[in-house]
Amino acid sequence: MTKASKYLIFGGGAVGSVFAWRLQKGGANVSVICRSNYEAVRDNGFKINSVKHGPGVFIPDNVYSTASEAVSNNQVYDFILVCSKSLPNIVNPAELVAPSVLNKKTVLVLMQNGIGIEQYFEEKFPQNPIVPVTVYVDSFQTELGHISHGNTSKLEYGIYKSEHADNEYNKLILEQFEHDLLAGDVESVILKNLQRARWSKVIWNATFGPVSVVAGKYNARELIRDPLANQLVRNAMKELIELSDVVTGEKTTELPPDEYISGIMHFTDNRKNAVVPSMLVDFQNKRPMEHQVIVKNPIDVANKLGIKVPVMETLYALLVLLEKKSLGSDKE
Amino acid sequence: MTKASKYLIFGGGAVGSVFAWRLQKGGANVSVICRSNYEAVRDNGFKINSVKHGPGVFIPDNVYSTASEAVSNNQVYDFILVCSKSLPNIVNPAELVAPSVLNKKTVLVLMQNGIGIEQYFEEKFPQNPIVPVTVYVDSFQTELGHISHGNTSKLEYGIYKSEHADNEYNKLILEQFEHDLLAGDVESVILKNLQRARWSKVIWNATFGPVSVVAGKYNARELIRDPLANQLVRNAMKELIELSDVVTGEKTTELPPDEYISGIMHFTDNRKNAVVPSMLVDFQNKRPMEHQVIVKNPIDVANKLGIKVPVMETLYALLVLLEKKSLGSDKE
Repeated sequence: MTKASKYLIFGGGAVGSVFAWRLQKGGANVSVICRSNYEAVRDNGFKINSVKHGPGVFIPDNVYSTASEAVSNNQVYDFILVCSKSLPNIVNPAELVAPSVLNKKTVLVLMQNGIGIEQYFEEKFPQNPIVPVTVYVDSFQTELGHISHGNTSKLEYGIYKSEHADNEYNKLILEQFEHDLLAGDVESVILKNLQRARWSKVIWNATFGPVSVVAGKYNARELIRDPLANQLVRNAMKELIELSDVVTGEKTTELPPDEYISGIMHFTDNRKNAVVPSMLVDFQNKRPMEHQVIVKNPIDVANKLGIKVPVMETLYALLVLLEKKSLGSDKE
Repeated sequence: MTKASKYLIFGGGAVGSVFAWRLQKGGANVSVICRSNYEAVRDNGFKINSVKHGPGVFIPDNVYSTASEAVSNNQVYDFILVCSKSLPNIVNPAELVAPSVLNKKTVLVLMQNGIGIEQYFEEKFPQNPIVPVTVYVDSFQTELGHISHGNTSKLEYGIYKSEHADNEYNKLILEQFEHDLLAGDVESVILKNLQRARWSKVIWNATFGPVSVVAGKYNARELIRDPLANQLVRNAMKELIELSDVVTGEKTTELPPDEYISGIMHFTDNRKNAVVPSMLVDFQNKRPMEHQVIVKNPIDVANKLGIKVPVMETLYALLVLLEKKSLGSDKE
């Protein structure tokens, strides 16, 4: 990989566009698959207003509307960044990307939240390197092709399955990816125990997300400031911290859990704008929520290990029941 | 009490009106305090259409609009049937009734659901006999003063605090009440362990009620037939069965809990019309729900005993949070 890496961004939304832009800025060749904003981006590129990186217009090297169109010229990509939502309860996420994957050397970079997101890709692409990423970015699409971005663009990642992490080819992959990110001014952290980072993020997403929806559309600040909701989020977080400690083989925190959670709450409460969990945004927009990978997969892990997570199980059931009513899928 | 007993019915709604009617039919003197339907009942009485007791018009001996009006002639009642909802989180239920209680011999018959309903009356009226009742009646008000009633009119009751149960005066009270009920063709069961009956009813009310609301307005049949909801209701019921066994000192059932619960589900599912829990009816009509006595008081009992009820705690928190949004009480 001495020449510019070739990237395909699967999902040109608020997350994908920011990192695609930075990678191109850093010298990579970047193609993007867009869906709802395809025409806007094809005609005008992305208009990005970023606090961290400044304002800019990002014209991808290619803009495609489908996964197969992205390889219509037999293009082989070095990296495919999967930036779509993971909704395995609706469609296998690996099947969506499959038409773009022509070569077993193509690195599948999974920029998705949740636990167990890798299993779908591992099964479909047993030979491709898989790089799960914990994404930190504060961006949203204000209108089709217009992205507003704050101060954070950071990726934490590693090779899926640590027994492969010392493999020379895999090391080269991570070095190349890091080089491309740093060249675009994206914070890059290569992790050995990347599952721990994923679980840490899930401790937030799998608690604030479901509670914000099932409590009746509360944002994170409202939940923190209501004593009953605050305690409920804490109860759920404690279940996940205990679970994460066992699963990742590393303590989530050296602090007492309640103190650690207080820190999370304090940080969240002090964000300039009240945080609206993406699960609530999806629910409000009548879009399917990522409850499978963010809530159900952790519960399944707990059940396999014989660890009780009654609060999480209750939240999950209610979330799915609410979604059924909301999306009308309870009517046959 | 050789002459006709004097009854005051506090709350002439769907529950109070049916039993008031039957008591008068049996020969008692019956006055009723009405609120929303006061004018309709004062002018025309109750029109009752009952499967069990036939059609009828019930003209109370007196109709009042307030608790103090009911004693404006210094009337002393033998029995006051408290048929209003118990909402101690909003107003002390005993304070509402207090203006009608002129004598410490007046029996306070608490026809209210939930756990710990007696404490408010015991504190306010330390000398009056208290008779908690578990009510079984399938009636509703179709329009002001019009009551539709099915096949069930049954009361299970006893003297609050079993150390008083053998007291001669208390025995006479129960005999008189039973006599008056039977004369009106109401099924009457005097219980020694009346808390066990109350808890049995709470096992239904405190699970189907909250879940029907927080899952997004499902009726009981929908909950039973959805595997996730079914399991959630079961999880909650198991917590309460374990708790009830400890609190009442008597097993809820000789069956394995899962089998017992299956029986409840089967019975509920096979009711002619899908059961809409009263908590959901209240929520849909933006009326306060009885979550304090039906959900919170049992949780408080569990906490005192060191018994974990995480599912019930989660449901309770969500119920209160939803109510806040629904009634707008989260806005200051």
